[in-house]
Amino acid sequence: LDYQHVQVPFEITLWIMLASLAKIGFHLYNKLPSVVPESCLLIFVGLIMGGIIYGLNDRSPPVMDSDIFFLYLLPPIVLDAGYFMPSRPFFENIGTILLYAVVGTIWNVFGIGFSLYGICQVKAFRLQDVSLLHNLLFGSLIAAVDPVAVLAVFEEIHVNEKLHILVFGESLLNDAVTVVLYKLFRSFCEMPTIKSVDVFAGIGKFFVVGLGGVLVGLSFGFTAAFTTRFTKDIRVIEPLFVFLYSYLSYLTAEMFHLSGIVAIISCAMGMKRYVEANISLKSHTTVKYFMKMWSSVSDTLIFIFLGVSTIGDNHEWNWPYICFTVIFCLIWRALGVLVLTFFVNRFHVNTITSKDQFIIAYGGLRGAICFSLVFLLPDFHRKKLFIAATTVVILFTVFIQGMTIRPLVDLLAVKRKRESAPTVGEQIHIRFLDHLLAGIEDISGHWGQYYWKDKLEYFNSKYLQKILLREYDQPKSSIVLLYEKLERKHAIELAQAGQLGHWPAHPSFLCSAFLCSSSNRTVITDQKLEDSPNPDVLDNMQEILARNLYRIRRTGPAYNRHTLPGDSEHAKEILILRHKSL
Amino acid sequence: LDYQHVQVPFEITLWIMLASLAKIGFHLYNKLPSVVPESCLLIFVGLIMGGIIYGLNDRSPPVMDSDIFFLYLLPPIVLDAGYFMPSRPFFENIGTILLYAVVGTIWNVFGIGFSLYGICQVKAFRLQDVSLLHNLLFGSLIAAVDPVAVLAVFEEIHVNEKLHILVFGESLLNDAVTVVLYKLFRSFCEMPTIKSVDVFAGIGKFFVVGLGGVLVGLSFGFTAAFTTRFTKDIRVIEPLFVFLYSYLSYLTAEMFHLSGIVAIISCAMGMKRYVEANISLKSHTTVKYFMKMWSSVSDTLIFIFLGVSTIGDNHEWNWPYICFTVIFCLIWRALGVLVLTFFVNRFHVNTITSKDQFIIAYGGLRGAICFSLVFLLPDFHRKKLFIAATTVVILFTVFIQGMTIRPLVDLLAVKRKRESAPTVGEQIHIRFLDHLLAGIEDISGHWGQYYWKDKLEYFNSKYLQKILLREYDQPKSSIVLLYEKLERKHAIELAQAGQLGHWPAHPSFLCSAFLCSSSNRTVITDQKLEDSPNPDVLDNMQEILARNLYRIRRTGPAYNRHTLPGDSEHAKEILILRHKSL
Repeated sequence: LDYQHVQVPFEITLWIMLASLAKIGFHLYNKLPSVVPESCLLIFVGLIMGGIIYGLNDRSPPVMDSDIFFLYLLPPIVLDAGYFMPSRPFFENIGTILLYAVVGTIWNVFGIGFSLYGICQVKAFRLQDVSLLHNLLFGSLIAAVDPVAVLAVFEEIHVNEKLHILVFGESLLNDAVTVVLYKLFRSFCEMPTIKSVDVFAGIGKFFVVGLGGVLVGLSFGFTAAFTTRFTKDIRVIEPLFVFLYSYLSYLTAEMFHLSGIVAIISCAMGMKRYVEANISLKSHTTVKYFMKMWSSVSDTLIFIFLGVSTIGDNHEWNWPYICFTVIFCLIWRALGVLVLTFFVNRFHVNTITSKDQFIIAYGGLRGAICFSLVFLLPDFHRKKLFIAATTVVILFTVFIQGMTIRPLVDLLAVKRKRESAPTVGEQIHIRFLDHLLAGIEDISGHWGQYYWKDKLEYFNSKYLQKILLREYDQPKSSIVLLYEKLERKHAIELAQAGQLGHWPAHPSFLCSAFLCSSSNRTVITDQKLEDSPNPDVLDNMQEILARNLYRIRRTGPAYNRHTLPGDSEHAKEILILRHKSL
Repeated sequence: LDYQHVQVPFEITLWIMLASLAKIGFHLYNKLPSVVPESCLLIFVGLIMGGIIYGLNDRSPPVMDSDIFFLYLLPPIVLDAGYFMPSRPFFENIGTILLYAVVGTIWNVFGIGFSLYGICQVKAFRLQDVSLLHNLLFGSLIAAVDPVAVLAVFEEIHVNEKLHILVFGESLLNDAVTVVLYKLFRSFCEMPTIKSVDVFAGIGKFFVVGLGGVLVGLSFGFTAAFTTRFTKDIRVIEPLFVFLYSYLSYLTAEMFHLSGIVAIISCAMGMKRYVEANISLKSHTTVKYFMKMWSSVSDTLIFIFLGVSTIGDNHEWNWPYICFTVIFCLIWRALGVLVLTFFVNRFHVNTITSKDQFIIAYGGLRGAICFSLVFLLPDFHRKKLFIAATTVVILFTVFIQGMTIRPLVDLLAVKRKRESAPTVGEQIHIRFLDHLLAGIEDISGHWGQYYWKDKLEYFNSKYLQKILLREYDQPKSSIVLLYEKLERKHAIELAQAGQLGHWPAHPSFLCSAFLCSSSNRTVITDQKLEDSPNPDVLDNMQEILARNLYRIRRTGPAYNRHTLPGDSEHAKEILILRHKSL
């Protein structure tokens, strides 16, 4: 027996296997996942595992290594989040998201830091040795809302798209702020005196870290798109480039102390559109499914490790400090959301309701990022107290808030995600309004959202697409393509209904009628429904129409890590495959 | 700049990126890959890289770590090879393959070892300090034909299926023999005296290492199949189990000093059939494509590292030893193939021609396995000589033999792989003969290949399938399914030809005619061809018929690492997808 030799890969494989089997186990009983979020169950498994290891070895089980977390476990999750990010709601709310992520996080950091410092001044609590800087440092790591925890909970409760993107976007983009504040306070802790220059340099760093991340990400994203132009003869390794370039963007950003999360998200969002057009359909399926699989496993491992790392004796228990930490986290977040939303609502027609505000404040879950950051703290005599407080905050938010948020959403009747796809009418109206608003902004000289979107689209089709796409052609033949698709769909429907040969109408009739006018359309629809009452025929046609005539601004489905776009994609792939084989 | 922090993942990613970009580079010029095998080009890139590193640092570039090779680079390639192994030709020739792999390898080891020892006795060569045991140890590592090198060359020359599986199967299965002999001689080198007991124990080990590997592999394979029964609700992580269990089988086998290659191949071949039936179609696509991608990247990295490791000053040059090593490798392999084939041909009707024998002998390429084994040798004063000799043999076989084998195959007019799929007639005949032979063997009491195959199939459908498959049902509705499929295909064809509505025949006409009799079939075929001359309609229908009526014993396509089963699979997937969506 030679265990030493294979130890590293063997143990990694076993941990992944444990995580996957735990996942299977939960889903064997259908009722369990509908009551308790998976993240809680996984932490629970981790706690048991940690307890067993502790009991057997009589020493603390190994804690999750911060390097492993930041270098190997976090990137797949963020990549997946960025790649499947619904871009329209994200960019429509980018201002609000940034406000929450930047101002909100700073607010929380200083709020929590100063009020905990106040608590430390009470003599009865015996905390006078914790300085203001240490409290602010602790505040900077505990204030960050965790994307992994938010995703795990929010993808199960199906709130409306805007609310989802506000919380999720904030959790992703606050990374830049957290990185800056955490490193700033950490370096202040080690400095003998702090000059005002250092403070201003810190403020300047925000922009460097955030915008630098975006730049690194976009440059890697465009390089990835450019590379996939040349993979025509070796389809086999196409999916690799998506993973390699995005991972490189993350590592490069980390190397230069920029925000890795921001970088990988920019990279994924930048490359997606071009890579999808360049690589083959099968490669794209592989990319999608592998990304989902990988992020799902990473996420499972993170929660299990979180549970395992909780067990052990690296905690220092101090009731007042820990309780007040939890309370201040809740209070300052609630206050921050209230104040910021007040300003946001003054400048927007589409306001954020008070129910939404409550869910935003309540959905500020903490997770593995805080946990890894607290272990990265330099050694000082109260580090174990901070570890204990962080662990309690994470467990409190994941267990108490995570388990009660679903009943609360039901109770408050928060607006849910709409399940049905938008109708053709809606889509045409949205597109019409986009153009109209871009025109109005252009004429009135107001350079707003729509104006820039229009300009960006122009720049994209004029320059970027020509460089990054392998086969660049204007979608001028979309009507012809649509006709062919409808023809084929029609034939399949007929064959399924067993009516091939008996059907009186010419195949192009349906299609042309559909394209001509709405009155005609109703006629043919009624006729069709009489013969075979198939309601999803209409839905599918609407979708085909929408995708072809309205390729650019289609509304993506809300983000969910565990599912993939469903049957409608199937139908599309069938037709495209079929078309290619001709 | 904090390079230290991200160094490990960053450098790994960069190496993979270099490998992938090198691959893209070769394929940009279409003529290059058709003349020079990719493996040669990659070694060449590696040599250049090694030269640059050597020039810049003025010290030897890092050699490929044997642990990295055996634990991380080799398993994906072997897994891919095992998973896509065409099982019918493999099992039909298993006896011959085993003879080549076991007896042939032992023959080569002792032949090369003793004759090199003879060379060492010549005083003029100054090699008298190399003992017999060291020569045998060297023989045991240099005799092993390398699956990675064989695959890289043979998948480009498209020889007939039997020849391909003979060379490739041998290269895979000789791992067990190599492991045993290598470890045996290595322990003998360190022992003061060798007892005859040790020799017999060594012979016993062959069976333990080989059969142990098969057992470990099969048990993990069946566990994997069993696990995928329960993944219905979490399709996302299905592909993971294929990779996890096969990797675990490899690691477990390595841990117990069994043959990891044999284990992972048994695991892959054992699980494939059941896993494919259990997991979703998309998961299966992901498994297939990711496996191809991964093995392709591993293979690229191995050849590049081989090139890099060649540069440096860990070689001791001795002309006679190195030249005679190359000559003996060629001579003993040629002799071994001649002698063994003589015996094989006496017991088989379907003999191996002398052309085939030449290609088998000539295709005995050495590669990274020898290279890793020679670096694993215990330190002794002539290790550098062995390293030099191994490097020369590898470069000679990969460059000289690898580049000349294609012209030789052309020159000798070796029987090629048939490109077209077998006709329905052929398939029915093959199936008929299988049953007939199984019956004859059963009656005559001769327990041959067909008898065991029949029994295994019975055991499989009676017990294994019930345990391992999620939805176990007899394929009794295959005629109905076929009818539906043909109906749908027909409709699509019509729509494509723009003839929907004008076609006079009832859709089921074509199908029923096809199923009834051959005379009827010719009539309808002629009629169809008159209207739209579409020859692949017939081909596709033959395939559908064959797959449905003859699901079990279909002949797989020859193995090729860089391509996937083509359009016929597409068509099948389309129909299955379509059918599921109904």
